[in-house]
Amino acid sequence: MKLYFATGNRHKYEEASRVLAEYGVELVQLTRVPKLEIQSSSLAEIALTAARAAYLELGEPLIVEDAGLYIEALNGFPGPYSSYVYKTLGCRGILKLLEGVKRRDAYFESAVAAVIPPYEEVFVARVRGIIAREPRGGEGFGFDPIFVPRGDERTFAEMGLEEKNRYSHRARALRMLGEWLRSRKIKRAQL
Amino acid sequence: MKLYFATGNRHKYEEASRVLAEYGVELVQLTRVPKLEIQSSSLAEIALTAARAAYLELGEPLIVEDAGLYIEALNGFPGPYSSYVYKTLGCRGILKLLEGVKRRDAYFESAVAAVIPPYEEVFVARVRGIIAREPRGGEGFGFDPIFVPRGDERTFAEMGLEEKNRYSHRARALRMLGEWLRSRKIKRAQL
Repeated sequence: MKLYFATGNRHKYEEASRVLAEYGVELVQLTRVPKLEIQSSSLAEIALTAARAAYLELGEPLIVEDAGLYIEALNGFPGPYSSYVYKTLGCRGILKLLEGVKRRDAYFESAVAAVIPPYEEVFVARVRGIIAREPRGGEGFGFDPIFVPRGDERTFAEMGLEEKNRYSHRARALRMLGEWLRSRKIKRAQL
Repeated sequence: MKLYFATGNRHKYEEASRVLAEYGVELVQLTRVPKLEIQSSSLAEIALTAARAAYLELGEPLIVEDAGLYIEALNGFPGPYSSYVYKTLGCRGILKLLEGVKRRDAYFESAVAAVIPPYEEVFVARVRGIIAREPRGGEGFGFDPIFVPRGDERTFAEMGLEEKNRYSHRARALRMLGEWLRSRKIKRAQL
């Protein structure tokens, strides 16, 4: 079965396509559709609004994924604006904000919105962890070099893609989608 | 003439209503209309999209204003997400990001979008200045305590409303709107 993924981010596409392949889904990257992103504290709402708008353009079953890093000592910052904050402040900016801060708890959240008529579904998953003292590792993207998932000592950027996908918020939200597709027996007919 | 201002921010409403009174406009605060805010690097686009959506709900001539603080050493951060960053990091977070940074240039930008059928207009104004070393003053709101406009030594929060409105980005964008209304002779008939 074939499903479109509206994203300009090649890394995200690669992560997602590896996970959904386990469910027999062939994911196709869609970069041409302009992405409508609203400002909201809810990633689920941001992703669903974007998916609906993309569906109106494309007319084919698709998913949109939005993710954010929520740092407790910073009242959830950068949250839904993680991508903008990564581009402007980077990992260094986050580390500077946390200088002298002892509680470094954080979580990554991923919201995967699927518009597969007649269905609209959003799958949300989180992975808890802490913010490292300094960036480590050359894999992954975004804030991966400063995020250490609970149960490990390495940052996401120190793991290979398969290892990261064992923990990752995005992989888990995508697996929820995969299970849902399987349980609904949504096969080539609908997709 | 009567014009609606879609905003939940009482401070903004007071600033704006004082300025537009100079042009014979009676500004009415509109808090009930849900505000559609998109993610964009352009305040003008954010304000215009919100104004169009509000007009579809209300059906009366209205304005929406969006503002942001752009700090050069932080690649424009917090920019269009200033309100979110103020709520999470506050002035202290901005000062921490600028610790040890010599170039403290910044500007405030304001975009006022007006939907007054058959017209749609956006007025954009900026005020340049620097980020203070520490918060000063008890007036104003948001990042006012750390912004010193060029040509003065006081922060916006150390000025009274009338003084601030002599410099302010918001007041200047609103005056552009006022002049435009006057030049078009848009009077009670249309509003």
